[in-house]
Amino acid sequence: LISKLPTVSTNIFSVMSQLATTHNALNLSQGFPNFETSPTLIRLVSEAMQNGYNQYAPMAGLLPLREIISKKTASLYQRNYNPEEEITITSGATQAIFTIIAAFIRQNDEVILLKPAYDCYEPTIELFGGKPVPVQLNGPDFSVNWDEVASKITKKTKMLIINTPHNPTGTTLQKKDMLRLEQILKDTNILLLSDEVYEHIVFDNKSHQSAALFPHLAERSFITASFGKTFHTTGWKMGYCLAPKELMKEFRKVHQFNVFCSNHPMQHALTTYLKTPENYTSLPEFFQKKRDLFLSLLKDSKFTFTPASGTYFQLLNYRNITDESDVTFAKKLTIEHKIASIPVSVFNMNQQDDKLLRFCFAKTDDALQKAAEILCNI
Amino acid sequence: LISKLPTVSTNIFSVMSQLATTHNALNLSQGFPNFETSPTLIRLVSEAMQNGYNQYAPMAGLLPLREIISKKTASLYQRNYNPEEEITITSGATQAIFTIIAAFIRQNDEVILLKPAYDCYEPTIELFGGKPVPVQLNGPDFSVNWDEVASKITKKTKMLIINTPHNPTGTTLQKKDMLRLEQILKDTNILLLSDEVYEHIVFDNKSHQSAALFPHLAERSFITASFGKTFHTTGWKMGYCLAPKELMKEFRKVHQFNVFCSNHPMQHALTTYLKTPENYTSLPEFFQKKRDLFLSLLKDSKFTFTPASGTYFQLLNYRNITDESDVTFAKKLTIEHKIASIPVSVFNMNQQDDKLLRFCFAKTDDALQKAAEILCNI
Ligand SMILES: CSCCC(=O)C(=O)O
Ligand SMILES: CSCCC(=O)C(=O)O
Repeated sequence: LISKLPTVSTNIFSVMSQLATTHNALNLSQGFPNFETSPTLIRLVSEAMQNGYNQYAPMAGLLPLREIISKKTASLYQRNYNPEEEITITSGATQAIFTIIAAFIRQNDEVILLKPAYDCYEPTIELFGGKPVPVQLNGPDFSVNWDEVASKITKKTKMLIINTPHNPTGTTLQKKDMLRLEQILKDTNILLLSDEVYEHIVFDNKSHQSAALFPHLAERSFITASFGKTFHTTGWKMGYCLAPKELMKEFRKVHQFNVFCSNHPMQHALTTYLKTPENYTSLPEFFQKKRDLFLSLLKDSKFTFTPASGTYFQLLNYRNITDESDVTFAKKLTIEHKIASIPVSVFNMNQQDDKLLRFCFAKTDDALQKAAEILCNI
Repeated sequence: LISKLPTVSTNIFSVMSQLATTHNALNLSQGFPNFETSPTLIRLVSEAMQNGYNQYAPMAGLLPLREIISKKTASLYQRNYNPEEEITITSGATQAIFTIIAAFIRQNDEVILLKPAYDCYEPTIELFGGKPVPVQLNGPDFSVNWDEVASKITKKTKMLIINTPHNPTGTTLQKKDMLRLEQILKDTNILLLSDEVYEHIVFDNKSHQSAALFPHLAERSFITASFGKTFHTTGWKMGYCLAPKELMKEFRKVHQFNVFCSNHPMQHALTTYLKTPENYTSLPEFFQKKRDLFLSLLKDSKFTFTPASGTYFQLLNYRNITDESDVTFAKKLTIEHKIASIPVSVFNMNQQDDKLLRFCFAKTDDALQKAAEILCNI
């Protein structure tokens, strides 16, 4: 038996969450909230089940859900996506990302991506015979060297992946980044996969720079979005993606044979829940308070940091504490100090180690206080 | 833009269900029940959400759910699957099937499959550069010519796909089939994908011949199962698969990047619900009554048939009515006679047309009565 993915093992999220459970540690590793999901949203799912929406949904998703997504996207990003042909509901953003890569990447295609990067892109590219072409982002600001990106483009470049707000660094792309990227891609056939699962979690009164806002990006883009991240329901595995119709047509060819369709009662509930914009427009303030609380409590710790400008992740640099590798230190913190985080090197090429740990602050204030207390004593 | 799946269009289930809706026809096409899901099961999902199980489940699924599946499998099929390493919960059986093919099929690998076949196998094989190698089953009995199967094996044969109870024909493989298959595969490295989503829907006091029952099959098999088909919840998109640990290890490498995990509150509910075997052991009687009702009402129609021995599908032969193609006739029945079915040729190679339509009898007795009334007037 020769593995198609010989270098892949259980991913870091499973490993760290498992370690946290085993050692009864506070789990700030895997990206999910520890607080309650809206009782309204839960009630809407229960009602949908009771009302009999328990059989297959349409393959591309419930039309009323796609319509309300279209409205939201038009109002936030000034672009109209046709609900019939340009929006598909998926079983989480991960399934959308996998399906996008599956639908377009062939043997020897190159895909440019910015490292550190969320861990699912590369193995999926490799599964289809594609070649990930990394561009390294460096701390503390992790800004993109667009000249380097441009220099990596070859005839084989099929796709470029961006992710804003960015996991794991908590940075966000600015308008000038997007304009520069537009300039780079404008006269090419390169597709853009814009992973925007944290679109509603952007801080300090900045606004999210969606690829949808930039016509020459949008025309070639798949934009992925997550109800899990937005509505505190990561375990429901619901998301969606947007793309111009010629691209979406290819996506759906794979989607229909991968999962066929996504959870029906949950689509019903989300349709109603999305009708109240407050349910997502309240997120920046909600999470910024958590970021600020966490960081204010770490003021006197030995960790150094640049405040996250988006996502619910905060990087902490431990250079002043030890020169152990981030993997070693993350495990030690979990086992000995009872706090779990994610070592950033696992998102890097060749495990490049900048002594950074990623902490998820989508936690109750109480949990953040406990976490800070532990971290201040290190 | 050159499609990776140039011949794929919207699949027949979406097309026929859509046509049924448009023309307000009784929908006996796509395979799903039109009656209520158990209120107990619905309540269990509501409770799981209220109890806070709304974030990521473990990647391979909830352990207690895997444990109860292991127990069920041991008791029904006398084989022990280790819940930790040999059982994975999936977002429907379709996602399991896609992931199995993704994890093992490479450029130029051959996959033998029996036609007619459920429509997702071939495009998925082709997406990964594999080559489907068909063996045709012929009515009225659709028995497998195992000599022909054996003759199709080459050095490139990587996988063989069976499906029992069989969609769309409603036939089931017998013990002698499985023994013969075991003999054919025993000394090869060929993997078996045994699609057993209708495992609990077998009629006339026969028992389901799972690949798990045959050691030389089980050792090389992925067995796929569906909570949607078993518990009347096709829209929840929940299923699972079984395989020896070396095989499951490769499956999970892809699974974790395809969907990461499956719906968490629903896994909780299914764990409890599976503890009452009556919830699935009652299925043969339940569906056999429906089959018998439907067929008794068709006694005086012009359609001819062999009663299904499993699944909730019944083939009807319309040779005595018209020589129109099955696609044409299925559309005409939907539009003019207000009853939708699936033309079987879409499951065949080269659309081989045997004048057969597939009707789903997972419907209320009332709906079956109405359906039979229409069909008797044709
Ligand atoms: C799919 S588990 C990982 C969740 C997540 O987005 C993260 O922790 O980065
Ligand atoms: C995924 S839609 C098809 C459902 C089904 O199993 C069938 O109708 O054969």
